This record gives sequence, structure tokens and C-alpha cells, in this order.
Amino acid sequence: MDNFLYQQLADKVSGWIEQRTLLPGEKIPSVRTLSQRENVSLGTVLQAYILLENRGIIEARPQSGYYVRLQTRELPPEPSISRPSISASIVGSAEVIARIHEANAQPDVIPLGGAVPGPELLPTHRLNRIMASVARHTTGQQHLYADRQGVGILRHQIARRSVNWGGALRPDEIVITNGGTEAIYLCLCAVAEMGDTIAVESPTYYGFLQMIEALGMKALEIPSDSRDGMDLTALKNALHKNQVKACLVISNFNNPLGSCMPISRKKQLVELLEKNKVALIEDDIYGDLYFTAERPEVCKNFDKYGNVLLCSSFSKVLSPSYRVGWVAPGQYLNQIKKLKFTTTSSSPFPTQATIAEMLKSGGYDRHLRRIRKAYSLQVHNMMQAIRKYFPEGTRCTRPRGGFVLWVEFPSTIDSMELHRRAMKEKISIVPGPLFSARGRYKNFIRLNCSHPWSDKIEQALIMLGKLAAR
Amino acid sequence: MDNFLYQQLADKVSGWIEQRTLLPGEKIPSVRTLSQRENVSLGTVLQAYILLENRGIIEARPQSGYYVRLQTRELPPEPSISRPSISASIVGSAEVIARIHEANAQPDVIPLGGAVPGPELLPTHRLNRIMASVARHTTGQQHLYADRQGVGILRHQIARRSVNWGGALRPDEIVITNGGTEAIYLCLCAVAEMGDTIAVESPTYYGFLQMIEALGMKALEIPSDSRDGMDLTALKNALHKNQVKACLVISNFNNPLGSCMPISRKKQLVELLEKNKVALIEDDIYGDLYFTAERPEVCKNFDKYGNVLLCSSFSKVLSPSYRVGWVAPGQYLNQIKKLKFTTTSSSPFPTQATIAEMLKSGGYDRHLRRIRKAYSLQVHNMMQAIRKYFPEGTRCTRPRGGFVLWVEFPSTIDSMELHRRAMKEKISIVPGPLFSARGRYKNFIRLNCSHPWSDKIEQALIMLGKLAAR
Repeated sequence: MDNFLYQQLADKVSGWIEQRTLLPGEKIPSVRTLSQRENVSLGTVLQAYILLENRGIIEARPQSGYYVRLQTRELPPEPSISRPSISASIVGSAEVIARIHEANAQPDVIPLGGAVPGPELLPTHRLNRIMASVARHTTGQQHLYADRQGVGILRHQIARRSVNWGGALRPDEIVITNGGTEAIYLCLCAVAEMGDTIAVESPTYYGFLQMIEALGMKALEIPSDSRDGMDLTALKNALHKNQVKACLVISNFNNPLGSCMPISRKKQLVELLEKNKVALIEDDIYGDLYFTAERPEVCKNFDKYGNVLLCSSFSKVLSPSYRVGWVAPGQYLNQIKKLKFTTTSSSPFPTQATIAEMLKSGGYDRHLRRIRKAYSLQVHNMMQAIRKYFPEGTRCTRPRGGFVLWVEFPSTIDSMELHRRAMKEKISIVPGPLFSARGRYKNFIRLNCSHPWSDKIEQALIMLGKLAAR
Repeated sequence: MDNFLYQQLADKVSGWIEQRTLLPGEKIPSVRTLSQRENVSLGTVLQAYILLENRGIIEARPQSGYYVRLQTRELPPEPSISRPSISASIVGSAEVIARIHEANAQPDVIPLGGAVPGPELLPTHRLNRIMASVARHTTGQQHLYADRQGVGILRHQIARRSVNWGGALRPDEIVITNGGTEAIYLCLCAVAEMGDTIAVESPTYYGFLQMIEALGMKALEIPSDSRDGMDLTALKNALHKNQVKACLVISNFNNPLGSCMPISRKKQLVELLEKNKVALIEDDIYGDLYFTAERPEVCKNFDKYGNVLLCSSFSKVLSPSYRVGWVAPGQYLNQIKKLKFTTTSSSPFPTQATIAEMLKSGGYDRHLRRIRKAYSLQVHNMMQAIRKYFPEGTRCTRPRGGFVLWVEFPSTIDSMELHRRAMKEKISIVPGPLFSARGRYKNFIRLNCSHPWSDKIEQALIMLGKLAAR
């Protein structure tokens, strides 16, 4: 009987949403309000809402209540799969990147450019308190050169947490780095040398392309799907035609695509590369920012022979300016250690010790839950605004994690020109060609969604739409 | 009359020292004691002591009194000038370095190996307090990616202090690095590439040789004098015979030689390299640790065309584990910035901000005075022990700054073997061949003098002497 009641109620609320009485993104009546209005028990309303939540029609937001979820029809269509030509190329660098970084520091610029977390979503107060305590207790011995492989308690905490995503890292196979950037850099140095070819997703993070260029290596772009990541058939063909030394992928929530490689594909990728004696550098920097029910696994879990170099960092979830990243380099451990010692000697003690304490003291998981929820919502808000304000024919990805969107404009729109015009209006965006070694994606941009939705951001989206339409 | 009295008194004290009533290193009677004993005024004794100090016979130690200085005849003779062969060679790496680093962390090992400052001489308490305060006031914005070139207030403080050694750096020509190691590494990447030849002092810091090897470059060893540094005639010849891309020198208190290049030679070096279009990478990491009256200048002061890349770090004077270094790369500024952004992105905020505050708040100069005095004494104590306990024929440098000694044993002694035997006795030393790309200096060792003289260290020196004599 009660069972029947809550289903009836769920259908009623569902009807309001279908008839657009309640619009996507809007708050729906609280459990208490609906219970009074419909004259049913609180438990019945709660059951109805859980049913609707499970159906994906509404979503709960902590300390706030229930909201209508954004449905597919409210969103712009997805971009087509990338089809870069299968030949390696020397990466062209760009002044644009410097401009985007500078824009991050300017408070009057709307920061839709750099993939930097929102400062509101960093645990600033908690980190500050921990670091003050770490500082007060630092001994003279700890001021001397620390363990060059990384502070032991931090490596232990990272190993402990690896169980969450199905891994089983040991502290002694982890090397702490100066952010994710140094982790990837050291991996490239360890597995390849000048002139070698590195297979990357297309599009991929421009920092990787810059690094590959700086090392005198070549980037080989592999077509990638915005949902499932790198196309393995294309990769297989590419491996036949090219002498590839390593493959560099962001397996979970690729930047800029938001793609998450399905688990079966991850396994296949590891096997394919192992068979071809090609090292796999896996960047999992966004892995903890999933919008789905479960933490996605990493390719490293299928690594039998130490051929996968797994990299990550706390820059996207705790504090970018602490610069604490890490790498579990498999069979390349000794090379990575030697390279780290030679290039930067070791990482600073206070930041490592602070993050170790943050991971240990337990507030970390609660913090992650909070920011996952927020980024999921912010990405959805941005998608809706794109549909509303961007020119007809604009497409956009459906990331299942992270906080960036990859937007495809009609082919007539030049994103470099749009970037320049937007900068004049104090809006920072990243033009698509930066994500390709061959300057592809001329009509694409990446949008950073890490900041809470606001009038200012909405105005910026309206302006971007207008600039694009010109 | 009074004038006469204090001179008489000075001669009297001088006589006690000559007759070995007072031995080198011993404390002499306090001003008050001598005044009472000799029945003269306090002022007269003070004048006498100042005269003796100026003559180099005694030395004042703050909060402690006056001591008999170690005289040349109390010390072992100096090693002969290095004469490496003039041809470039690929550097051989060593497991020994890893062992020495590990020994630093073991409390039961006598640390005469790594050139790490003594923890007693670091301003631990003060740095801890400053960092706790920095931590408490760090804003959300400061947790985001900081200025990638380095925190502005730190660059400003470094520029301000550059006036002390005759420089006039601007904050915008400085890039903050992850310790001195990253500064040198970035410089090598900026000015040379794989296969290129780098001229270095012989002997020179083994970390440089490792770096040159890791980059696939070649080290060309230039004969160097233990007092005045690199031999410029030899360098000139080498430049004619070899295609040299850069010259890497520790101009002030070379590690391991302790040499300090005279100012005229610094000027000549800059002109010679400028003329030959060879970049000068200058490491001034020990520059603030002078035992002489004045802070030595740097080659950079004579740099008219931006051909000198000046590197330094706070690792030897404040906190090694903070990993804060810097480079003023002259005309290579843009390359260095790009390389820094590409390889490690930026340096952590908290450590930079803490050191900036330490420099700003004024305790820094007082701290430097204190540690200079201590290192000077510790180096002298070590020299004396070498003369006393090491085999007949052992020679040793006379550093005028820094905290390492370069010791030459009779040619029959194998320092690699000595290193191994010493490690078994829990004594860490660095064998000479590490300081040469060609494995020269087989009968040399480097001794770290950064720790206060103690029975334990004296016992270690006695043991080393015995091991060497076998």
C-alpha cells in the first residue's frame, strides 16, 4: 500500500518535470513541504525521491535538497570522434599558454581557461591548519635533505589509498614528484629519448605536447572517443606503421575530452602495449573526480610486467600550489629515481608532510565527495548554458568526471580568433589547436567548469556565444 | 704611554703562543682575567687583543671569547694543482652517491660525506615559526598555481640582497627553482643539448657530472687551483681544441676545492667566454659562507651581454629540505622560464613564502654571521686533525669559505677502498674519483666539516687515519 503511494508520488513529481513545471537545474520541494502538501508521511516522500534519484531524474545535493537533473535533451549534441592523420609530427608551441596562465592570476578575468580547481572547493582552512602544525614540529633533521624518493609517510598513504581503485601499490615503488608535471616529464625521460615517437590521445592536454616538444620527441595523435577514450584499433594500426616508444594517456576523464576508458579497453590497452614493447605512461590526475557511482580503475591494475608508469597528483583536489605529485613507475623505478635525484634532487618536506597528514586524518574522502558533487553540477550548468547561448550546431562532450568541457563550434568558427576576442572581454578560454600537435581542432574550445555557477559566468557564456556568432 | 702598554701586552701574549704555552685552537685568558693578572685596564687588554686579531694570531668567537688561531705550520700542506687531460669524456655514474645520500639519514653514521649543513646551524626554530604563520594566512588564491616564475616577494628579496655582492638583479630576471639542482639542470638544458661539451672545474661537484651524463652531454675537465679556481690559460687552450658549449663553475668556494676565484680572474673568465660565445653557468651556492672579511663578488657582476647564468640556493644556509633555489639566466631568461614551466610547472608556495619572510625580517644576516664563524672554526679543527691523525705526506686544501675539505693522500692510497672500509666503520666520506668525469683523484677524499667538532668526529678522524695507513 505504502509502496504504491510512493510510486504514485514519484510519478506525480516526474510529471511536473516532464511538463516543465519544474525546470532542469531547479530545486524541487523539500521532503517536509511535499509531505505537508500531499498529506503523506515524510518516509513516503523520501522513498519517492530516492526512486526518482535512482531513475536519474532528480539529484540530491548535500545540505541543500533535491534538484531536477539536466536531461540529455537539454544538452548540446556530442562532438564527433577525432580523426587525426596517422603520422608523427613535431609539436608547435604557443604563446597562448603563457597568456592563459597569466589570466589565472588576474582577478578580473573570468577563468574559463586553465584547468585549475575552484579555490572555493579547496580545503584551504584545513590544509593551513595541518601545515602550521607540521611547521611547528619540524625537526632540524627534517630540515636536512629528506628521503629523496619522497617522505615515507606520504608514500605509505598513497599506497594505502591505492586499494580504493583496485591497485595494491607498495610505498617503495612510489616516487614523489614536483606535481604531476614532473611525474610525466620524468617518465618521458625514462622511457624515450630525443627523436622518439610518443602516441597520445587526440585531443590531449597541451602541457604534454609542450613537454614532448621540449624533449625533442614527436607526438603521434591517436583518434579518441569523447566517451571511451583512445581508439585501440587506430592505435594498433599506428603501432604497425610507426616506431612508437611510449603511449601517454589520461585514462580517466581525459583533459579536454572527459573520456573514461572502459575497463575492458584498459585491459586491452595494457596487453597491446606489453606485446609491442611500448611503455604506457598513465596519468590518473582526475581519477578521484568521478561523477559516477564508483571510482574508475586504472590501467596499472592490469600491469603484469611493470610496463605501466602510473602518475598522479594532488593538484586538482587539494592544492595546486603545493606541487605534490607521484609516480609508480613499475620496472622503470630505478631510472625514475636516478632522474629525479639528478634533475631536482628531492621534493620539499613541508608540503609532502602536510598532504600525508591530510590523507591520514580522514577528512580527505569527505572532501572528495563534496567536490565531486560540486564539479558534476557545475559541468552540467555549463552544458546547459552552452545549449542556450552558443550558436546553433554547437556540440559538447558529456564528461563523467573532472571539470572541463570540450566544445565543438560549427566549422566556420576560428577558436584562436575567438580566444583573442574573448581575452579583450576579460574572458579566458583555451582554443582547440593547443590540444593537437598538428594544430587541429580549429573550431573547438575547452571550457573550465571548476568555478561555482554565477551571474558573472553566465554573462561570460552569453558574451562568448555572441562573439562566436559574429 | 698607553699605546706602548697595549703593544707590550700583545707581544707578551704572542710570546706565550710562540712558546706553545697557549696552543692553536685553545682559549686565551679573558679580557677581565688578563687585566687583573697584568694589572692593566680592560681597554688596554682589549686593544692588545684587537691588534693580535688583526695580525691573524688570535680570533674572536661571539659569546665565547678569544682563541689562538690555527697557523699554517699547524696544518697539512696543500694539494698540487689538478692536471686533467684536455679531452672531453662521457661521465661515469656511481652507486657510491646513493650510498652517501642514504648515510646522511642514518643517525649512527658519522656524516663526513654529503655536503649537507649541520642541523645545529640551521635556523630551525625561526623557520618553523615563520612557516606556521605563512600557513595560517595562506589564501585560497595562493593555493592555486602561484606565479610560475616564483613568488614575487621572494624574487624581490633576492634582488634586494644582490646589492650585497655588487650585483643589481631585478626581480623579473630571476626564476625560482626546486633547489640549486634544478637551477643548474635548467641552465644546462637551455644552453646546450645532447652531445655538447661542457667545461667544468677539475675536480668539481659530482652532481654536476651526473647531470651532464644524464643529459647525454660531455664534461671537459679544466685544471683548477685549490686557491684561485679554474686555470684560464688551460681553459683558453681547451676552447681552441674543443667545441665547448658552456662552462660551469662554482666561482666562490668550489665544492670540493674550496677555491675562490680572484676578482680579476672572474672578469677575465667572463670576457674570455663572451668572446668565444660560450655560456657561463655560475653556481654561487656557497658564496655567503666566506671566512674572509668580505662577501666575494660573482662573475655575473661583469656580465655585459647576459651571457652569465647565475644560480644559487638557500639549501646550504637555511633549509635543504625546503628546496628553494633560483637562477638569474641573463639572455636565456625566456628559455629557462619555458623549461621550468614544462618540466616542473612551478615551485611550491609555502616554502618560497617562508624564505621570503626570513630574508625580509632581518634575522638572516645575523644568522649568516653565526654560521660563517662556526664553519670557519670547524674547517680549521678538521685540518688540524688531519695533520695529527692522517698518514705522513697527506695534503689538504685551505678553503676560505664553505664547509668542505679536499684531502690528498699519498698516491698509494685508494680512496674508493678507503670509502668502503670507512662505511663498515659507520663513517661516511666521499672518494675523489666521483669528482672527476675520468675517475681521477684516486687518492683524494672530500670531508664534510659542517658538524660541530666532537669526540665522535675526532674518533672518526683517528679511525680514518688508521684505515688509510694500512
